[in-house]
Parts: sequence; C-alpha cells; structure tokens
Amino acid sequence: MPIICRHEIVGEVTEVGSKVEKVKVGDKVGVGCMVGACHSCDSCANDLENYCPKLILTYNGIYYDGTITYGGYSDSMVANERYVVRIPDGMPLDSAAPLLCAGITVYSPLKYFGLGEPGKHIGIVGLGGLGHVAVKFAKALGSKVTVISTSPSKKAEALEHLGADSFLVSRDQDELQAAMGTFDGIIDTVSATHPIMPLLSLLKSHGKLIMVGAPCDPLEVPAFSLIIGRKTMAGSCIGGMKETQEMIDFAAKHNIKADIEVISMDYVNKAMERLEQADVRYRFVIDIGNTLAATKPSS
Amino acid sequence: MPIICRHEIVGEVTEVGSKVEKVKVGDKVGVGCMVGACHSCDSCANDLENYCPKLILTYNGIYYDGTITYGGYSDSMVANERYVVRIPDGMPLDSAAPLLCAGITVYSPLKYFGLGEPGKHIGIVGLGGLGHVAVKFAKALGSKVTVISTSPSKKAEALEHLGADSFLVSRDQDELQAAMGTFDGIIDTVSATHPIMPLLSLLKSHGKLIMVGAPCDPLEVPAFSLIIGRKTMAGSCIGGMKETQEMIDFAAKHNIKADIEVISMDYVNKAMERLEQADVRYRFVIDIGNTLAATKPSS
Repeated sequence: MPIICRHEIVGEVTEVGSKVEKVKVGDKVGVGCMVGACHSCDSCANDLENYCPKLILTYNGIYYDGTITYGGYSDSMVANERYVVRIPDGMPLDSAAPLLCAGITVYSPLKYFGLGEPGKHIGIVGLGGLGHVAVKFAKALGSKVTVISTSPSKKAEALEHLGADSFLVSRDQDELQAAMGTFDGIIDTVSATHPIMPLLSLLKSHGKLIMVGAPCDPLEVPAFSLIIGRKTMAGSCIGGMKETQEMIDFAAKHNIKADIEVISMDYVNKAMERLEQADVRYRFVIDIGNTLAATKPSS
Repeated sequence: MPIICRHEIVGEVTEVGSKVEKVKVGDKVGVGCMVGACHSCDSCANDLENYCPKLILTYNGIYYDGTITYGGYSDSMVANERYVVRIPDGMPLDSAAPLLCAGITVYSPLKYFGLGEPGKHIGIVGLGGLGHVAVKFAKALGSKVTVISTSPSKKAEALEHLGADSFLVSRDQDELQAAMGTFDGIIDTVSATHPIMPLLSLLKSHGKLIMVGAPCDPLEVPAFSLIIGRKTMAGSCIGGMKETQEMIDFAAKHNIKADIEVISMDYVNKAMERLEQADVRYRFVIDIGNTLAATKPSS
C-alpha cells in the first residue's frame, strides 16, 4: 500500500462552516502535521495537541470518522479550524509552508527549553530543512548561533547566507576541543546516526541537547557525560497549534522564511531523486494549485 | 598505588581558625565529597561548587597546596569552613553521615528538576545506599513514590519499612505495561548496565529521567523515546555546599536518616566482601574515632 504523504500545506480559504470564527473566505492559511486530537486530555487542555496520545496526523492517520487522512497532494482540503494556521498578511505563502513543520519543530524547543534568549550560545547541528530555519529563529530570538556540521563546505552558506555567527566542523577534533563547554544549548536536527558524546561535551554545565531529528539506531549516551555538569538531553516533537500560530506570527515579524525551490507536480519523481542526494536548499514546495491539472489524465 | 577513599565524614569540631565564622569548637559537623573548588567560576558563584571544573574531591584529589587529599580514614581532619556542613542538634551523627553524599545526590535533582513536589509521581530505580534515602526525601517532599526494582524480594522493605506508595518489578512486562506514561519523574540510582527505554516509556509527556548512578557502558537511548512526549534525560552530581546544608536541615526537620550498620575499623575487609554481595542495608558507617586505635601497631 502506498503511503500518501505531504504536510506543510498552504492555500486560501474557499469555504467555511457556519460556526467557524478563526478564518473567513479569502484568508491565507496553512495546515501542518496535525489535523485532529482528542481535545480532552491534559496535553490538549494545555494547547499541546502534538503530545496527545490520540493525535491525528495530516497524512496516513485515522480521522475521527475512520477514514484515512491523505495530506495535501490535492487542490483542496477540509480541516477543523483548530488545526488551521493564519498566515499573516504580506508573508509569501510558498516560503511560509515549510515553517508549519520544520519551523515549529525548531521554534518550540528553543522556547520551551529556555534556549532562544539573548546572550545564549546555541548550536544547530545539521543544515537542512530544519537546521536552516533553526539558525534564523535562534538569531531572531537574540542568541549567538553556531552551525555544527560534518561538511566544511557549508561554512560560507551558514555564515554569509543564513547569518550564523560561527561554524564548527564536528569531525575536526581541534575545533571540537576548542569549543568544549561553550554552548548553552544545541538543537540536533540530524536523522542519520551520529555520535552524541562530542555534542554533550560542547555543552556548558546545565546545558541542553535537544533532539528533533530521529536516527534509527539508539543514541549511545555515556551516563557520565550527563552527570558531570548536570546536562540534559531531551526530545521535542513539532508544537501545539497555539504555539504554531505564535511561531508564524514571529516569523512574519522578523521576516523569517524557509529557503525553498518551488516545483511543479510533474517534477516530483525527479525531486525525490534529488532529496536522496540532499540536493535541495532546503525544501521543495510543490505548486499543486497551478500544476496538478497537468498530471491528470485528459478527459 | 592504593587509593585512600572515604567521604561522608562526621565528627565534632576540636579547633577553628581565627577567621572561621560558620562553626565553633564542640559543634557537630560533616564533610561530604568535596573539600575545595576555584571559587571564581560561574558554578562557584552560584553555590554549585560541585560543577566547578577545579573541584577538589575529599579523597584522591589534589589540594590547593599540591598534596593529595586522603578522605576521612583518620581520627581528625582539617577542612575549609565552606565545605563543612553543620549537623543540626539532635540528629544522630552516624545516620546523618551518608546523607552528605547519598542524600544530597538524590535531593538535589528532586529539587532542581521540579520533581519533589506534592502531587508528583516519582519513581526511584534501585534500592541501595542512594535509592533508600531517595524514597525518604521524595516522600517528605510530598510526592507519590514508586520503587522500581528488578528484585521482587524488596517489595515489603520498600512499602513497609521505607514508606513507598507502590513497587514495580522492572522485569515484569505486565507491570511495566500497566504503568506506562504514569510517572512525572524517575531518579535512576543504578550503576550496573540496565535498559533505559522501559524507564522512558514509564514517563508521562514532559517527564524527566535523572541519572545519578553511572553505568560504565553507554546508555542506549532511542531518539524517538525522547521526541514523542518531549521527554528529558539528564544527569546530576551531588550538590553544592549551600544546598547540602539545606538538605541536612530538611532531613533533620523531617526525621530522615540513612539506614546504616555501624562497624569498627577492623571489620573493613569483611565489609568490603559484603559490599560486593550488596549485603548491607544500606550503608556501612565506620566508627573511626572509637576503633582506629585497635588497628594501630602497639608502640
């Protein structure tokens, strides 16, 4: 059975139910990773639908009525207003779209773990879809930002294009050694298996390493790396709808956009090939509305 | 070279320097794991000498004057007043001694990570020197306490003697399954290698697993176990001197004592054998003052 994917969806409201108060026809809106939850548990009561045990994902989830959710590969979709994010006026829809997952995934832990504060030194591990917006949010929140990457080739991009303050090659033992104990927090966006101990050693005492990428293999964590210095390692998973709206409003105010390449629907196979080679800066956005028709059989 | 150990030292002040203000001759006092630090770093400035990079341990450390620190296997010792803890009136010295390391090691994370609060459900993994006082502190702080152990044989001890609210056999899959997602925090005192994922699954969303025991092998931590539920895994290492005094005052107020077996100096070899078999409830305390003479060669 094929899995029909796609979240990070944007568009314009074409119709609203009679009780809808949040949006009106013509509004620019988005839908992220979730389209439902139980709305009665502690998480839901605290605007943390993302941690509700009955969370309904935007694609491949089971909706309230028992049907499967099919995501956004469509020229229209129906969503409960709770899961609809208002895109602020003047914000380009296409470069706002990836913020609905990648953006909130990095914004939420910066806020929750007290990392996005002026004067804090924050590391961003990995410069992909999540990492590149993490740099922008952490900078806008006032932090000093260091990009941590295995690829020296990304240095110019990180410093000149994304505005990071410094760049650390994680395979360079001298650079690692020099930076030990200098980070208040690190957001790790990498989903490939990679060593964790060097990242913990970069943290100051009481520093926090937050995993938002999820390698398949278990992380190997020496207990002493946590105990000496009272360090924290934690995970974070997207964010609740209230915080997602806060994030997109913050992004609009600080002119934060995802760097994207807009493609047409008939380019998706090629795009998948390029994704496997990490050949995109940094997200493909498919222009479904204008190009879906081209993929339909002619009638 | 033999390592001369021993911390968790108690006794009576016999002499004070001219500038000492904290204690006077005749006071009952203790010295824990530390006897010095740099006193100029951020950690020291925040009463967290225990996280000072120049921390001087009570035994086998290098003191300011370059000599090696020899711990408390002696009928007298000299200590800087900053590292001297006042034992409150009426508190038995012998059962207070283990609190100076074991006690503060569990008290500090309960406080720092917000776990020792009324209404919180706290798990204590391992029922040894640290675990048994962790149960007492967590109960006194108002938490609901569950002892988590591989040994069903410890159930009666945990519930009836130590006052835990419940007991969970961590090798029993049915018990684990039934308790999933019900803990606000877990203090893990076990220093033998053991699986971490089951403990993370016991936590509620936003729950915290705190390691104070340090297995030699790296912990295997699936990133998803942290990400789903925004869970935290952290370490904690003893506590600062200000907090150690707070802990011992709290213990006196709530009648918290370590369960101990007082032995004489000439019993230490036998005690070491019994320690290897975990045959002590829960700490040996050596009565150095009254028994050291017996081990000295006659003159």
